Amino acid sequence: MCSYAIGVDFGTLSGRAVLVDVRDGREIASAQFEYPHAVMDRALPCGVPLGSGWALQHPQDYLDVLSETLPQLARRVRPEEIVAIGLDCTSSTVLPVTQTGTPLCLLPEFEQTPHAYVMMWKHHGGQEQARRMTDVALERGEPWLDRYGGIVNAEWLFPKLLQVLEEAPQVYRAMAHYVEAVDWLVWQLTGAQTRSAGCLGYKALYTGRFPDEAYFGALNPAFGRVVAEKLSGPILPLGSRAGTLSEDAARRYGLRAGTPVAVGNIDAHVCVPAAGIDGPGKLLAIIGTSTCHIVMGDRLHAVPGMSGAVQGGVMPGYFGYESGQSCVGDHFGWLEKHCVPAAYEREAARCGLSVQGYLTVLAAALRPGQSGLLALDWWNGNRSVLANADLTGLMLGMTLQTRPEELYRALIEATAYGARVILDNYRASGVAVDEFFASGGVSQKNPLAMQIYADVLNMPVQVAGVAQGPALGSAIFAAVAAGRAAGGYGTVAEATRAMAGAQTLRYQPKDTAVYEQLYQEYRLLHDAFGRGALGTMKRLRAIRAGE
Amino acid sequence: MCSYAIGVDFGTLSGRAVLVDVRDGREIASAQFEYPHAVMDRALPCGVPLGSGWALQHPQDYLDVLSETLPQLARRVRPEEIVAIGLDCTSSTVLPVTQTGTPLCLLPEFEQTPHAYVMMWKHHGGQEQARRMTDVALERGEPWLDRYGGIVNAEWLFPKLLQVLEEAPQVYRAMAHYVEAVDWLVWQLTGAQTRSAGCLGYKALYTGRFPDEAYFGALNPAFGRVVAEKLSGPILPLGSRAGTLSEDAARRYGLRAGTPVAVGNIDAHVCVPAAGIDGPGKLLAIIGTSTCHIVMGDRLHAVPGMSGAVQGGVMPGYFGYESGQSCVGDHFGWLEKHCVPAAYEREAARCGLSVQGYLTVLAAALRPGQSGLLALDWWNGNRSVLANADLTGLMLGMTLQTRPEELYRALIEATAYGARVILDNYRASGVAVDEFFASGGVSQKNPLAMQIYADVLNMPVQVAGVAQGPALGSAIFAAVAAGRAAGGYGTVAEATRAMAGAQTLRYQPKDTAVYEQLYQEYRLLHDAFGRGALGTMKRLRAIRAGE
Repeated sequence: MCSYAIGVDFGTLSGRAVLVDVRDGREIASAQFEYPHAVMDRALPCGVPLGSGWALQHPQDYLDVLSETLPQLARRVRPEEIVAIGLDCTSSTVLPVTQTGTPLCLLPEFEQTPHAYVMMWKHHGGQEQARRMTDVALERGEPWLDRYGGIVNAEWLFPKLLQVLEEAPQVYRAMAHYVEAVDWLVWQLTGAQTRSAGCLGYKALYTGRFPDEAYFGALNPAFGRVVAEKLSGPILPLGSRAGTLSEDAARRYGLRAGTPVAVGNIDAHVCVPAAGIDGPGKLLAIIGTSTCHIVMGDRLHAVPGMSGAVQGGVMPGYFGYESGQSCVGDHFGWLEKHCVPAAYEREAARCGLSVQGYLTVLAAALRPGQSGLLALDWWNGNRSVLANADLTGLMLGMTLQTRPEELYRALIEATAYGARVILDNYRASGVAVDEFFASGGVSQKNPLAMQIYADVLNMPVQVAGVAQGPALGSAIFAAVAAGRAAGGYGTVAEATRAMAGAQTLRYQPKDTAVYEQLYQEYRLLHDAFGRGALGTMKRLRAIRAGE
Repeated sequence: MCSYAIGVDFGTLSGRAVLVDVRDGREIASAQFEYPHAVMDRALPCGVPLGSGWALQHPQDYLDVLSETLPQLARRVRPEEIVAIGLDCTSSTVLPVTQTGTPLCLLPEFEQTPHAYVMMWKHHGGQEQARRMTDVALERGEPWLDRYGGIVNAEWLFPKLLQVLEEAPQVYRAMAHYVEAVDWLVWQLTGAQTRSAGCLGYKALYTGRFPDEAYFGALNPAFGRVVAEKLSGPILPLGSRAGTLSEDAARRYGLRAGTPVAVGNIDAHVCVPAAGIDGPGKLLAIIGTSTCHIVMGDRLHAVPGMSGAVQGGVMPGYFGYESGQSCVGDHFGWLEKHCVPAAYEREAARCGLSVQGYLTVLAAALRPGQSGLLALDWWNGNRSVLANADLTGLMLGMTLQTRPEELYRALIEATAYGARVILDNYRASGVAVDEFFASGGVSQKNPLAMQIYADVLNMPVQVAGVAQGPALGSAIFAAVAAGRAAGGYGTVAEATRAMAGAQTLRYQPKDTAVYEQLYQEYRLLHDAFGRGALGTMKRLRAIRAGE
């Protein structure tokens, strides 16, 4: 008998489900569904406007992904051949729900309250709360702060929940649970509430325990008992089973009741097994609009400015380290949208290329250093290793001869230097990085960028094939949740070795000498503007805000 | 009987002649002619390619200006009513000629030799020679170096002539004279070779005497006797008469033989009387593709990083100080051409605006500091006060929300900060700057820029009317060359008061507080990158050049 696993990936704008063969990871079928409400960052569907930095989603969109995709996959094989389901989602993407799991925003009384909706990972409305959480943690000398690079990020769970408490106390009061979207979705499948230790580890300051009541109470007296009041439920490790498919869900999706459902995971993290990484020293950079860097290590090291280090947070048995670059593909998109003249658009169209495709052709003809440009890739602040959202972009070296393709290449190079700062920082902190893997949209679409990364990092860049997305990673975790007896695997590493696809492309470093020089120049500016010697960016922000 | 004067201005791309009433400067007629060869910066007409940084012109184009414009003006009044002619030209714009004044490039044997053509003011082929001239002057402690801000500029006469000697010795040997274009044109009118002390003072290190043979010999043994061999001829002060119109020239242009011809002048400098400035403390900024700042003082002060201080160099009786910003309108043009998306071009067209006009409308709606951007206006190096052609542009503060109009406004602001550095530098050195006058294309076309200048400088900006261009200035000098007896004037100041037009616009400072803060930020970056603490730009140049 054949064994198949389903993986479902909930991304920023759509969900994608795959049915794969458990023996070798071969994709049998896939289905995709775009969220009808996409990202709500200006107003709710009813017209209530949202503040600056807000980013919400509608939970019904996630349910629609399940009902639109799962039946399509289920029809392809016999129900009993589907041995498990795994889910992953962006994170921290969180919502308030009732005791029975109904999202508050689906209740008529909260339909017009923004705080009752899903706050997406990139919701920055709790920036002020995040700053206070860092300050109070520093004051109190909280021991967990080191695990998170010394700073609390506004994108994590608690700043969002504190924002809800302080701005919409009626929502805070009404919720029985504040849950990660992926945990809520697993709950919809199994009928039982659980929480993923992976999500809590990276996004909710969970290091085997949460920060204590005194800390939360110091932030706001009403927040002291937040863990007991809003974050209850069993916390399950990655690689384990959250439960099995309920009768109700089985009927709705055309699957077999009792099918094992894996503990939910973070979309970026399931890319690690999907890329074929089964252990320490192999860093995966998921390069899209932003970049997430993940690497596993045998031991716990304090790494300044990383986003988090979580035991078993990526795979059981290892510490999973995560860092991030908050703006990568977004840089290129910004330039493409705002700084490329009509003549280029026309010429791109004439050549049958996208504007970025055309810029890439021109930029590829330049040799390293030829433009004389150098940029700091901080158009959206710096997540790692400076962990400072107030930093802004810099471009230097322009002359009257400077052309858009040179600016474009300089932005690509800047993100490569930014990646190298992260790698250097890991190594300096004792975390080995021996190999560099890339996945994500930029790695697939931009060979020039990948070659520049190889040159700047002075190590080969191994790009995972298109099919090796997060949905495959979730299917790998599903195969582990199924267990050996059901045709699955005993460990994530074992499943990875069997099911992950081969790398399709490998970029060898070539132009390393000039890039070594340029990287030193980048480091100089990085430290001058990022570590306080030149506080220009912060002061300009203050002037801008009229402070 | 009426008295009229003719002024002819030889610009970068065309020549413009005006006929004005000597009593009040009223323009009776004008005529313009564009140079057929324009600027030759890629190849000679015969196809011989030019190196990077080269910029040549064809002397026949200048003669065509005279023969196309003067007869048109002459026909408007009776020949005896035209009491004098004055010329001005860009400078240092220089050419090698024979004993009788024939440009070498018009001889068949030199037609294909780039060095035999007119080297324009912006020809930078002698950069290496200029650097050596500075170094050797510093080594030898040459006393004149202070008058030129401590540096020899590649745009001046001697670096160009030394380039000719070292790269095309046959041209150097064949020339009898190396002459400023304006002196050569005056020669064509009078039939007698003379040199303008104004041009030599600013562009040929002439401070009443030239540097001595030992200095030139130290640069190159064959260059020791350059002054005696290539720069002979009477040197005449500004405001005096170079000679009178020859029979031959009179016939050719429809004028009266014996008409006085004024000593030639620099185009930027004749704008000073044209703007109505008759004495010290009133700074004129001629704001076009680049900006030239001119102010007169009673005494000689050492001003670090100025372009030159010349006794009688602008008007008799005063020291004329000159500084420059090497890129102003060119910045805006660069952005317009290379960094504005098609959507903006379309919207500008729909509104019936130029792209810059449209950007100006959008940028005018921003309040100071709102964009969070700050730029260093060094896309073409820095002429004053850093005097460093190797500096390059910088833009800082970009976010994903940054729009082209914000970049545009930041570039305008940067040039205003650059102007303020120059004013602050004059004041700190003892040269009074009590009033600020603006002329040139940007002052006429961009009210937003002028308001920003008033705000940044914290003083009113007085803009000269459109008609008050250099050609009027040359007509003012012509009226002085004519003398009182012929209906003209005894001094340049007197002629200026009678003939210069009134200012048409006055911008009062408004938003000075925020700009004071931003200027301090600019100064910090200016000094960090310009005075060596951060030598990034120079090192990137070296990497670019493959050094």
